[in-house]
Amino acid sequence: MTEKDNLHNLRHSLAHLLAAAVLDIYPKALPTIGPSIDNGFYYDFDNLEVSDKDLQKIEQKMREILKSWKEFSYKEVSANDAKKVYENNPYKIELIDEIVSKKEKITLYTCGSFTDLCRGGHLENPAKEIESGSFKLDRVAGAYWRGNEKNKMLTRIYGLAFGTKDELNAYILQKEEAEKRDHKKLGRELDLFIIDSKVGKGLPLWTPKGTAIKFALENFARELERKYDYEHVETPYLGAEELYRTSGHLDHYAHNMYAPIDMDGEKFYLRPMACPHHIRMYQRRPWSYKELPVRYAEIADYNRYEKSGELMGMIRVRKFQLTDGHLFVAPEGLKEEFKLVCNMIVEGMKGLGLIDVVSYRFSKRDPKNKEKYYPDDKLWNHAEGLMKEALDELGLPYVEVEDEAAFYGPKLDVQAKNVNGKEDTLFTAQIDFLLPEKFEIEYVDRDGKKKRPVMIHRSTIGSLERVCGFLIEHYAGAFPLWLSPVQIKVIPIRENHNAFAKEVADALKGENIRVKLDDSDEGLGKKVRAAKVDKIPYWLVIGDKEIAEGKVTLESRDKGALGLFDIESLKQLLKKEIEERI
Amino acid sequence: MTEKDNLHNLRHSLAHLLAAAVLDIYPKALPTIGPSIDNGFYYDFDNLEVSDKDLQKIEQKMREILKSWKEFSYKEVSANDAKKVYENNPYKIELIDEIVSKKEKITLYTCGSFTDLCRGGHLENPAKEIESGSFKLDRVAGAYWRGNEKNKMLTRIYGLAFGTKDELNAYILQKEEAEKRDHKKLGRELDLFIIDSKVGKGLPLWTPKGTAIKFALENFARELERKYDYEHVETPYLGAEELYRTSGHLDHYAHNMYAPIDMDGEKFYLRPMACPHHIRMYQRRPWSYKELPVRYAEIADYNRYEKSGELMGMIRVRKFQLTDGHLFVAPEGLKEEFKLVCNMIVEGMKGLGLIDVVSYRFSKRDPKNKEKYYPDDKLWNHAEGLMKEALDELGLPYVEVEDEAAFYGPKLDVQAKNVNGKEDTLFTAQIDFLLPEKFEIEYVDRDGKKKRPVMIHRSTIGSLERVCGFLIEHYAGAFPLWLSPVQIKVIPIRENHNAFAKEVADALKGENIRVKLDDSDEGLGKKVRAAKVDKIPYWLVIGDKEIAEGKVTLESRDKGALGLFDIESLKQLLKKEIEERI
Repeated sequence: MTEKDNLHNLRHSLAHLLAAAVLDIYPKALPTIGPSIDNGFYYDFDNLEVSDKDLQKIEQKMREILKSWKEFSYKEVSANDAKKVYENNPYKIELIDEIVSKKEKITLYTCGSFTDLCRGGHLENPAKEIESGSFKLDRVAGAYWRGNEKNKMLTRIYGLAFGTKDELNAYILQKEEAEKRDHKKLGRELDLFIIDSKVGKGLPLWTPKGTAIKFALENFARELERKYDYEHVETPYLGAEELYRTSGHLDHYAHNMYAPIDMDGEKFYLRPMACPHHIRMYQRRPWSYKELPVRYAEIADYNRYEKSGELMGMIRVRKFQLTDGHLFVAPEGLKEEFKLVCNMIVEGMKGLGLIDVVSYRFSKRDPKNKEKYYPDDKLWNHAEGLMKEALDELGLPYVEVEDEAAFYGPKLDVQAKNVNGKEDTLFTAQIDFLLPEKFEIEYVDRDGKKKRPVMIHRSTIGSLERVCGFLIEHYAGAFPLWLSPVQIKVIPIRENHNAFAKEVADALKGENIRVKLDDSDEGLGKKVRAAKVDKIPYWLVIGDKEIAEGKVTLESRDKGALGLFDIESLKQLLKKEIEERI
Repeated sequence: MTEKDNLHNLRHSLAHLLAAAVLDIYPKALPTIGPSIDNGFYYDFDNLEVSDKDLQKIEQKMREILKSWKEFSYKEVSANDAKKVYENNPYKIELIDEIVSKKEKITLYTCGSFTDLCRGGHLENPAKEIESGSFKLDRVAGAYWRGNEKNKMLTRIYGLAFGTKDELNAYILQKEEAEKRDHKKLGRELDLFIIDSKVGKGLPLWTPKGTAIKFALENFARELERKYDYEHVETPYLGAEELYRTSGHLDHYAHNMYAPIDMDGEKFYLRPMACPHHIRMYQRRPWSYKELPVRYAEIADYNRYEKSGELMGMIRVRKFQLTDGHLFVAPEGLKEEFKLVCNMIVEGMKGLGLIDVVSYRFSKRDPKNKEKYYPDDKLWNHAEGLMKEALDELGLPYVEVEDEAAFYGPKLDVQAKNVNGKEDTLFTAQIDFLLPEKFEIEYVDRDGKKKRPVMIHRSTIGSLERVCGFLIEHYAGAFPLWLSPVQIKVIPIRENHNAFAKEVADALKGENIRVKLDDSDEGLGKKVRAAKVDKIPYWLVIGDKEIAEGKVTLESRDKGALGLFDIESLKQLLKKEIEERI
């Protein structure tokens, strides 16, 4: 038996134990189903009213019963006999009918004095095999019978369970850390963004502090784009029907799009992607091979249909801004250009401090999956071969994955591991031979003939919403100086220090440093604590001594007390750290 | 008779003369109607095929006939007699029936050998009173009979006419100048923006050069906003139904809004204004009187319903970005805050170089117009009184206009005169007591009680689209350095000068100067001409002499040859001019 099976059996046994304990305390509760899950187990009950504060009592009862659970036994029974056992439990009756309809055997498993309708999969001797500290009841939640919202809402009790007590504790610790870093929680506490029911679900609003981060990210992306010779454009978030008819989005991607808006008899769509707009930008004039590659970058508005239930903070939203870009490349320049794109991505991830948590996934088609991919074997082989060469020549560490490509070509996915250890795609770079065909994009080659360029779709640092959510969790809200909404707080000790403090604050503001003067009536201790709670990277304390010397006392969130600084050295220190993004 | 009546009679007489000349040359043409208009006259004909190149011939015939037009005579006729005259002209028959149905007299006017069905209003002696050079046929166009697109398309000939030849020439000169400055024409020629039929009408795309201007305007607005202590926020261009229900936009403003989009059973609107978003931003937490005024600024996406036929370049669009802002002010601070808003607007207009073409309009309600305005005399008197005091204290020159206020309060309109001499509203500042009521906005006052703040809605420099269109025309595309898409062009004379030229270009690029290196194979003359055509403010010429001295020869679009500069002085000169926005 594998370790995984064993863990499943342990968790499943604990689900039985939970049901036994609940029925012992609440005899009128109706047990329904109780499977093992990723981090433990749950059991759903009807006719049970409990809250989180009852969990300790139930858990205690579980530990008590566990001592006597030395063996699981089972017997096969007829449908009639089984229904007799559960004559007052319509849920189990429904399950029995289902088993009968599938022509499977009906089995009842018993341990101690508790019997449950079950397919099996338990530990042989729970009392011996379950370490007493290795499980813990977690929380109470509501859940519809069979997950269908038309059915009755049942009471679900979740438990955590691992092989050992140490494993459980490690898991709890990691979960607590993840919760502390949760971008929705920190976003609220640090006042970075709000999601407002009146404005609408899935539509975050960036507060002044959040907007400071957004602007810093925008500047970072645009600086990088300028360095790599992109031209910035700005295009509208709406597009006429013909545009998305030509691109094929309305044929292949309509399920991710919102319904159109009528404007004087023409249909307009909130755009799901900006490629068609950049293509039309390219097509505004003829191009010579000498001018290629043409590289357009835009912080582009995107709109994607997401179900209400799947929205999540800044990570899954209905409208976002992608640091987007499209390149029009002569076929012979494609590999070198793709390498430049990769270099730029690596430089971006370094700049954001994420280089150690991102990995690269080379997503290819599955040649057998004919429906999912644009049917042209030669093009696919060429594009995949070329992308692989580029990645190998750069020495970029990557994994190859089949059947994850886009419809029109292979992708490089920039994967990031979040605080829960879960890997998510931050953004991608893709090679595309198809849209140039559909839009009949051209350039004039050396021989005077019209040729078709290849497109690369790529992002610089992903969507501002997603990368900001990710950065909040990555830094647990303690951003590096260049990203911090407030970079330094100026704290006068008493009222008579306010004037000099304001002078210092104004001097820093003049250097475009985001400074906040705390001239409130609070005491020094409280002011410093507030700076720490807000995770501000630096604060200055100004009192009699500082005024006498014309200097300030600098403290750092990360490095502690730094001593006295004159204003000029302070400016230099901050400006250097901001410019170098360290 | 006023001068205006006289001009009308002159133009109307010329319309007759035009018809007479056309019928002389094209006897089968059917005359319909021919009124005087703003700058001349026109006449519509059926059964006439002419183009602009026929106009000279017709004009010549007019001048020929004019000599014999010494008197207009008229006679009253019966409907039957009139219909006999026009038995082959269904248009005139229709007009006769209309006159009959209105019980008016039917009159026929004759001059020379030409008679027309007409109400009168001519010169007594055209031959004497019309200066031969004071009129000119302008162009041929199609026009539906009676302006109804269900009717037949007729041929319309337009003529220009003024009291004297000098007046006509002045008008033509001004029109040519306006056409040269037309932002749609210059936008295309200088490659600043495009409107693409596939992307959709009313949705301009900013090209790389246009985007450079847009970014410069954005930076200018944000710098100004920071100086006046605004906080920047970013909010979505969508809003749920409840938001615009609460704000009253759906009750009062729905005709300017697009149809809603359904998202999982909820209705979302493309926002026509951002005030509700900024209000919800304010309402995310409680506020103390000490923290007021709260000032939010955003380059906010707006969507306004415009009919296809009314769209115009960058001036009238379906989606635009307003340099928007909303202030939440304690009532006792309102006047001072409004003065700050005015100061900021004046500073903005100075920065854009528009201070001499803008004027200020204080738009009040008409107290008799009860339906158009929020009904609260006391509030209106207070707000208007306070706004007037603020304007007077500032000494801002303004005109007062009744019945031009917003529904909820008085406005200051920033009016700008365009190249056609027509005045248009660039943007506004408004005082609003109503939305704070509707959203129940609050702050905690000195006495611990909850009070209602007043709102000011205002823009910094208007919509980026409109102000850019306006600036293109104002500067005729020859932008000041800070706004120029390409700020300086580096021109090596021959290929062996390219390397040093690139070095210079890179050095300037390193200072964030928008530089273009022209290392094409063209000769010096052609390269310089291209820089002039593109209206680039500066160009550098680099040849043997420059390389020998390690210097560059600088020329200015506006100031001519400026001589030799070393790179460091050149940098300083450009950076100073950019920073000072001169």
